[in-house]
Amino acid sequence: MNAPQKKPLIEENWRERVTVGPLPGSHKVYVPGSDETIRVPMREVELAPTRDSNGALIENRPITVYDTSGAYTDPNASIDIHRGLEPIRLPWIERRGDTELAPRLDEGHAIGRRPARRARDGRRVTQMHYARRGDITPEMEFVALRENLRLETYREQMGHQHPGQSFGAAIPASITPEFVREEVARGRAIIPANINHPEIEPMAIGRNLLVKINANIGNSAVSSSVAQEVEKMVWAIRWGADTVMDLSTGDNISETREYILRNSPVPIGTVPIYQALEKAGGKPEDLSWEIFRDTIIEQAEQGVDYFTIHAGVLLRYVPLTANRVTGIVSRGGSIIARWCLAHHQENFLYTRWDEICEIMSAYDISFSIGDGLRPGSIADANDEAQFAELKTQGELTRRAWEFDVQVMNEGPGHVPMHMIQKNMEHQLEWCGEAPFYTLGPLTTDIAPGYDHITSAIGAAMIGWYGTAMLCYVTPKEHLGLPDRDDVREGVITYKIAAHAADLAKGHPGAQLRDDALSRARFEFRWRDQFHLALDPERAREFHDQTLPAEGAKLAHFCSMCGPKFCSMEITQQIRDYAREKGYADERTGVDEGLRTKSKEFVEGGADLYRPA
Amino acid sequence: MNAPQKKPLIEENWRERVTVGPLPGSHKVYVPGSDETIRVPMREVELAPTRDSNGALIENRPITVYDTSGAYTDPNASIDIHRGLEPIRLPWIERRGDTELAPRLDEGHAIGRRPARRARDGRRVTQMHYARRGDITPEMEFVALRENLRLETYREQMGHQHPGQSFGAAIPASITPEFVREEVARGRAIIPANINHPEIEPMAIGRNLLVKINANIGNSAVSSSVAQEVEKMVWAIRWGADTVMDLSTGDNISETREYILRNSPVPIGTVPIYQALEKAGGKPEDLSWEIFRDTIIEQAEQGVDYFTIHAGVLLRYVPLTANRVTGIVSRGGSIIARWCLAHHQENFLYTRWDEICEIMSAYDISFSIGDGLRPGSIADANDEAQFAELKTQGELTRRAWEFDVQVMNEGPGHVPMHMIQKNMEHQLEWCGEAPFYTLGPLTTDIAPGYDHITSAIGAAMIGWYGTAMLCYVTPKEHLGLPDRDDVREGVITYKIAAHAADLAKGHPGAQLRDDALSRARFEFRWRDQFHLALDPERAREFHDQTLPAEGAKLAHFCSMCGPKFCSMEITQQIRDYAREKGYADERTGVDEGLRTKSKEFVEGGADLYRPA
Repeated sequence: MNAPQKKPLIEENWRERVTVGPLPGSHKVYVPGSDETIRVPMREVELAPTRDSNGALIENRPITVYDTSGAYTDPNASIDIHRGLEPIRLPWIERRGDTELAPRLDEGHAIGRRPARRARDGRRVTQMHYARRGDITPEMEFVALRENLRLETYREQMGHQHPGQSFGAAIPASITPEFVREEVARGRAIIPANINHPEIEPMAIGRNLLVKINANIGNSAVSSSVAQEVEKMVWAIRWGADTVMDLSTGDNISETREYILRNSPVPIGTVPIYQALEKAGGKPEDLSWEIFRDTIIEQAEQGVDYFTIHAGVLLRYVPLTANRVTGIVSRGGSIIARWCLAHHQENFLYTRWDEICEIMSAYDISFSIGDGLRPGSIADANDEAQFAELKTQGELTRRAWEFDVQVMNEGPGHVPMHMIQKNMEHQLEWCGEAPFYTLGPLTTDIAPGYDHITSAIGAAMIGWYGTAMLCYVTPKEHLGLPDRDDVREGVITYKIAAHAADLAKGHPGAQLRDDALSRARFEFRWRDQFHLALDPERAREFHDQTLPAEGAKLAHFCSMCGPKFCSMEITQQIRDYAREKGYADERTGVDEGLRTKSKEFVEGGADLYRPA
Repeated sequence: MNAPQKKPLIEENWRERVTVGPLPGSHKVYVPGSDETIRVPMREVELAPTRDSNGALIENRPITVYDTSGAYTDPNASIDIHRGLEPIRLPWIERRGDTELAPRLDEGHAIGRRPARRARDGRRVTQMHYARRGDITPEMEFVALRENLRLETYREQMGHQHPGQSFGAAIPASITPEFVREEVARGRAIIPANINHPEIEPMAIGRNLLVKINANIGNSAVSSSVAQEVEKMVWAIRWGADTVMDLSTGDNISETREYILRNSPVPIGTVPIYQALEKAGGKPEDLSWEIFRDTIIEQAEQGVDYFTIHAGVLLRYVPLTANRVTGIVSRGGSIIARWCLAHHQENFLYTRWDEICEIMSAYDISFSIGDGLRPGSIADANDEAQFAELKTQGELTRRAWEFDVQVMNEGPGHVPMHMIQKNMEHQLEWCGEAPFYTLGPLTTDIAPGYDHITSAIGAAMIGWYGTAMLCYVTPKEHLGLPDRDDVREGVITYKIAAHAADLAKGHPGAQLRDDALSRARFEFRWRDQFHLALDPERAREFHDQTLPAEGAKLAHFCSMCGPKFCSMEITQQIRDYAREKGYADERTGVDEGLRTKSKEFVEGGADLYRPA
C-alpha cells in the first residue's frame, strides 16, 4: 500500500476521547506475586451490609472480579497515549537473557521503545518453550493469580455451588502456577505475549481456565483518528474484552497499530494477510511469500501477540465450497482461495508453515489458525469443506508445537444448536486439545440486527462444551460498522455467554458473583445489584427510568410489582415466620436441621404446623 | 376491588396510537380451508430475482412466514377498537350447538357482545373433548394449515435442510388436521381458545409444533389508558408474540382486559389471583375460594384463553424455600404461600381443583399450571421445592385431563445451562408430556439490563429439548417496566430462541427462511435480506447508519469490508471459475458430479487443476 497520507491524525485533545476512571462501586486492587514486579490487577466490588430481621447490620465481604481494563480504571495511574503503558513485563523478559535488540524492519512508525526485541541466535522464547523446559515464568504465575481470583478467601461462601458438567475438561479447584505451566506445555492453554508487547497484563486461553472473549476493532476505509482507535480498545477492555483484534484495513494502519499496542494491557491479534494484501495493491494474485513474511516480521517487531493465519485453506478444498449457499465468507479465506486458483498452486501459508513457525518462535507470537472455510450460513454448517480444513488445522497445530509455538484454532461461524457439539468434539480430537476460538456460532441466519444474540446462544453452548475463547459479534454484524454502543453491547453479550459457560462447566468460584448479586436483589440492596452487574451503568439507568428517586435505591420493592405484590417482601415474611418457628437460618444457608425437618414434612405429607 | 375511578380513559385519538400496516416488503395472504369460514393468515415476503453470471434474471419465489399480527397488518381490514375484531370463530362455535348465552356475572365492563357464552347443562366444550371424541374442529384445521406454512409448495427448496435432533419429539413432515387432533387428544398440544374469545386466529402449543412465544403486558400502578394497553398487545403481536399475558394489577383492569380481548387475534392469558387479591383488599390472608371462583368466572365470561393457577404450591413445600438464596420469586406463588401460612391450611387452589376444572371445561379455558416455587437465582435451580411442585403439577395435569381440560405447565426461571435438560426430562415424565411453558430460563444472574439475552440462551436450549412455549423476558427484567422498545427487543429475542430451537429440532421447513436470507445476503440482495429478517426495520436502519445511500442497497459489497476485501464477491469469482471449468452449478445445488469430483480431489490429495 502506498498511502498518500503517511501521518495519522493524533488529536491534541486525545485525553477527552479516552475513557478513564473506575466502574461504579468498584476499586482496583493488586494482588502481589512472588516478587515485587508481579502485581495482579483485580476489581473489588464493595457491598453494603445486610440488615437482619432485628435491624442489626451484618457486613458483606467485597467480591473480587476478573479485571481486563488495565490502568485506565486505576485513578492512581497516569495515562499518556504518546508514552504508552508501563512495560511491566520488561524485567521478566530481560531477566531471561535470551533476547536481543535490533533495528526494526520498518522504523517509520515507532513510538516509545524503538528498537525491536527478538530471540538471540535461533533461541525459542515462547511460553510453551519455557513450560516444556519446566520453568514457571512470571507470566504463568501472573495468570494463575489472576484466574484464581483469591478464591481461597471465599471458600466458605462457595459451599453451595452447583457442580458443573465439564465434557472431559479437568478444571482444578484452584489455579496454581504449576497448573498453568502444565497446560501451556501440553498445548492446552496459551499465553499470548509477544516479547515486544511488554505492556500486557498476561492472560491465558484454555478450556480448563475461565472462558475468554475477544472484541474486534479496526479503522474502516473512512479513516479514523489514532485516539479514536485507542479509545475503541480502551472501551472494549473496560467492559471486559480479554483480547482485542485490530482488523484495520485503511490508511495509517501501522501507526495506528503501534499506538494500540503501546497502550493495550491485553493481547492484540491481527490478520496479517489484510496488510499484506494492501502492499500487494489489493490484488490477491499479486501476494507473495516475501510480502507476507515482511509483513509478519514488521508486526512481530511492533508487538502483535497473535496472528490469524489461514494456512488450512488448501487448494483442493476450494471446490468443496462451490455448491455452498454462502461460499467462502472469511475475508482471509477468500483472499487465499483466490490466490490458489490464480496460481494453480498450494496455499503458500501452508507450504511455508515451518518458516512462519520459526518467526513466531523468535517473538513468542501465538497462532490463531484461521478457519477460512467456516460456514457463513446454517445451510453450510459442518460440511466437508469446513471439516477438511479443521483436520488440516490439526496438522498445522502439531507442526507448530514442534517449534514450541503456541497455537489456538479458529472455529465457526453459523451452526444450528444441534450441530455445535460435533465441532467441539472434532476440534478436540483432530487438533490435540489446542484451545478453540470460535466466532459465535450464530444459531440462525434470520435475525440481522440481533446477531449478537443469535450468536450468544451458540457461543454459550460451545463455551460450555470446551471452547476457550469466544470472538464477539455485535448487533451490526452483516449490516454495518459497529459504533461505541455496539461494541459495549457485543462485549457484555459475550461476557454473558462466557460466564454462563463457566457456570455450566463448574469453574470454581464462578457462581460466587451470581450468588452475591442474587442476595443483593433479594435484600433490596439495589446499588449492590447494579455494581455487581456486568454493566452497572445500564442496570442503574434502567432502574432510574421507572423509579428515578434516590430513595428508590433503598426501597423494599420495585417498579414491576409495587409494594403490595412484592413476592420478595412476602418471602421475607415467610422466612421470618419460619425462623420464629425455628425452621430456618437464612444467613448460614446450611441449617441441616431445617433440611431434615422439611424432608420429613414432604415425605410424610405432613402439615408444617402440626403440633410438636 | 373497589376502584375509585370506574371508567377508563379511552382517548379520542386512539387511532394514532394503534400501529397498523404491513411489515416492509411483505403482504398478507389467506390460505383457504375446507369451508369459506376458514381463512388462515400468513405473511408472504416478496423477493427480488437473482441475476446469474450471464446477467439473466431468475425469479425467486416469495417466502411464507407464520403471521401472528392479525388484521392490523392487513391494509384491507378496518380497525375499530370500540367494535373489536371480527369474531371469526363464531360460526364454528354456534355450529357445535353445545353452548348457550347468559347474562354475565359482571356486566359493567362489556363492550361488543354483552351476554356470555357457556356450555349447556354440564357439557364440556373444550378442544380436548372434541379431539378425544374424534372430531376435527375448524380450530384444529386452522392450526394445521397455519403450522404447515404451505410447505408442500417449497419441497424442492427444502432438499438440503439439516435433519434435527428432537429428543423424542415426533415431528411429522407435514402438519395435518388429524395430527393436530391426535396431539390435542393426547394432551401433548393445546389450542387455547375460550368460547368467549371468538376473535382469535387459533394457534396451538405443543412440542411437535413450532415453538411459540408469549409476551407479557399490563398496566402498572400508574394507570395507563386503554388504547395504550391495546397498542401494547398490537405491538407485541406485530413482532411475533403468539400469545399475550395481561398481568395488569392497577385500576380499570376489567375494562382494559375487555378491550384487549375484543381486539386480540391471539390467545390472552391472565393470572386471576392478582385480581382476586385486589378484591381481597390486597391482603393474601383475606383471599377466599369464593372470591377466586367469581374472579375466574368473570374472566371466563370475558374470554380469557388461559389461566395461570398456582395450585402446585402446597403447604408442605413452603418451608423448603426458607433456606433459598431468593426464596419465592413468583408473585402468585408468594401470595398463595402466605395464605397457606396464615390459615394453616392447604392451598385452596389445590383442594378446589375439581371445581376449577368444571369451570374451565365450560368455557374451554386452558390451564397454565403455575410454578410458584420456581428458582429466582442460579443458586436455587433444580432444588427440592421446585421439583416437589413440578410433581404436583403433574398430578394436577392428570386430574384436569379427566375433565377434558387443556393443560400446559409453567417452568423456570433461573437455571445454569448444564441443569436445564433435567427440567425438561422431569416435566415430560411427571406431567405426561403436557406442553411445557418456561420463563427463559436465565443462565446467569449477573447481567441485569441484559436478561433478555441471559434468558434467550436458556430459552433456545430448553426449546430445543422440547419446551413448547417460551415466555419472553425484556431488557428491563428485575429493574423496571418495559417500554415499547423493550417489548420489541424481548419479542424479537424470543423469536430468535424459538426459531433456533425449531432449526435444532428439525421442524420441516424451518430452515427455508434461513436459506432464503443467506442466499439474499450472498447475492447482495440487501432489501430481501432486510425483509426476510425478524426485524426488517432494524436491519435496514443499521445498514443505513453506515451506507445510507439508496444505491448501497444494490451494491455488491458492504460497509464492513468495502469492495476490495469482499469475501462474497471473491467467492462469486471462485464459483464462476469453477463453473467455467465444469465443476459447479450453484442454482441447483445438487450437482452430484461436482461432489464426486471434489471428493476425488480431497481423498486423492490431488490438485484441482491437474489435466483431465
